[in-house]
Amino acid sequence: MNKIRIGIVGYGNLGKSVELGLKQNNDMELVGVFTRREPSSIKTVSEGVATYHIDEAKNMLEQIDVMILCGGSMSDIPVQGPQFARMFHTVDAFDTHAKIPEYFDEVNRNALESGKVCVVASGWDPGMFSINRLYAEAILPVGNTYTFWGKGVSQGHSDAIRRVEGVLDAKQYTIPVESAIEAVKRGETPEFTTREKHRRVCYVVAKDGADKARIEQEIKTMPNYFADYDTEVHFISEQELKEKHSGLPHGGLVIRYGKTGINEENSHTIEYQLNLDSNPDFTANVLIAYARAAYRLHKEGVSGAKTVVDIAPAYLSSKSAEEIRRSLI
Amino acid sequence: MNKIRIGIVGYGNLGKSVELGLKQNNDMELVGVFTRREPSSIKTVSEGVATYHIDEAKNMLEQIDVMILCGGSMSDIPVQGPQFARMFHTVDAFDTHAKIPEYFDEVNRNALESGKVCVVASGWDPGMFSINRLYAEAILPVGNTYTFWGKGVSQGHSDAIRRVEGVLDAKQYTIPVESAIEAVKRGETPEFTTREKHRRVCYVVAKDGADKARIEQEIKTMPNYFADYDTEVHFISEQELKEKHSGLPHGGLVIRYGKTGINEENSHTIEYQLNLDSNPDFTANVLIAYARAAYRLHKEGVSGAKTVVDIAPAYLSSKSAEEIRRSLI
Repeated sequence: MNKIRIGIVGYGNLGKSVELGLKQNNDMELVGVFTRREPSSIKTVSEGVATYHIDEAKNMLEQIDVMILCGGSMSDIPVQGPQFARMFHTVDAFDTHAKIPEYFDEVNRNALESGKVCVVASGWDPGMFSINRLYAEAILPVGNTYTFWGKGVSQGHSDAIRRVEGVLDAKQYTIPVESAIEAVKRGETPEFTTREKHRRVCYVVAKDGADKARIEQEIKTMPNYFADYDTEVHFISEQELKEKHSGLPHGGLVIRYGKTGINEENSHTIEYQLNLDSNPDFTANVLIAYARAAYRLHKEGVSGAKTVVDIAPAYLSSKSAEEIRRSLI
Repeated sequence: MNKIRIGIVGYGNLGKSVELGLKQNNDMELVGVFTRREPSSIKTVSEGVATYHIDEAKNMLEQIDVMILCGGSMSDIPVQGPQFARMFHTVDAFDTHAKIPEYFDEVNRNALESGKVCVVASGWDPGMFSINRLYAEAILPVGNTYTFWGKGVSQGHSDAIRRVEGVLDAKQYTIPVESAIEAVKRGETPEFTTREKHRRVCYVVAKDGADKARIEQEIKTMPNYFADYDTEVHFISEQELKEKHSGLPHGGLVIRYGKTGINEENSHTIEYQLNLDSNPDFTANVLIAYARAAYRLHKEGVSGAKTVVDIAPAYLSSKSAEEIRRSLI
């Protein structure tokens, strides 16, 4: 059997995790890593991984089936997604929810023209959480869906703290408010304020002599990022930050509470929960499963942009349809 | 817009729940209930629902799009599934796991011939749990999946108790062993015996003068049903059984524990959990969503038997693709 030939575009945390995740899938092989940096400067996690300048990709149409786009949603993916859709099947984790419709349309136009299959906005949210929001709403049309995130590290919020004057380094955890989750499970179908759903806990390393009271105040009142939340700020040493907060754990919960029955007397909850030691590792593994799906959809004559909800679950599995019916149904 | 026209075949608990569930989906309408009993003897939950003898179905090919098959998996569905696949799109909740492959093949042959779409083995297990087992395994290839059922009423086990001499009525609850779930979450990837995963709690109404010690002994040693479990037997009054145990709650948990990273140093859990006040109501609502999917797949030229994993999530939603991308992704 021919293996599915994968390229990785962008080699940060996510790209590295894709490299590792591919080792767990023996129907796939990594052809190489594509970067905007000098390729020889890239030290891959495993030995012997080829590195190329991103501009070389266009000369490798025959060597690669699916490109997994691992750049950032802010500026990389909006450019690379439509561009690579002209040349390869692609999978990305574009996660700017508000811009997904317009991004989808742009990738779709290019993918339909090139005859490629491009999976956009994959990962876990958007991604597996989107799937679960959809299934839960379709099954329990009378009800409410809630999404909680955490406990986990928010890179964006950690970066925001690092930009405060006097801060050397920082890590921010988003934590769901347990009493809010309990209220949903009890069927109170509450309408939460931002503050009621999540709280934020920050571990901050201050520069020598910095005014900690001012730093704490600046963080807690920062608009968009922290002002609407109950925020805790803990000052710790560089050493402690490194020892206790160097990971990138994350997770979350999609929960729907719905009612059925002649007088809506029966309550039901559907919960989908993730607890992840490594956000990039898990996201990478979702992208890899959708790379398999893109490849197999193309074999069936499909082309165009797809989101995770447009793809039947079976396409993600390395098992045959018969084996799935025997062992998983 | 034309509504999707639904027929219900078989009018027990599940059929009644489908009747109620359809009221929550305004893109569908109930054409009638089909039964082997005398149609005029059927009292439907709502007023004005037409009832027909099951033999009349073959004369109503133009009036009905999707037949939801609500009979039992033991003897009804194995006959009705292949038979109705020659005439209508169908959805069923066939749940004899071991026979699904052969049942699928038989329905598939007939559905391909008639050009219909037939969704087999839908519901929650098989059904939503199957989907979640597949997704979780595809995303975390290195790991273990566990399925726990309950707390909930097992009809088969309740029936088995009722067949014991001296028993007037009974209700049996299947209860997952909490310490087993905790062990899975801790990543011990245990191999459980039957006894270690679930326990069984029975509420029994004994006939006047019956030998309770013998009844309890017979239940606890009953092969297949109880002998391999820790089983509790509680004798209660008919009154108490009616007041406290008349519902059909159920639920369960699919959980996968998996590892990633260069040395498998990162752990992840994916959990899908259901808590259901009414097993038939929830199952019915899943079948209804798949009736929508069957209808829409046919509009796209698809035919044949499908299981839940062969159907993209979006087909279950009453929302348009654009609306899904805007509001659910």
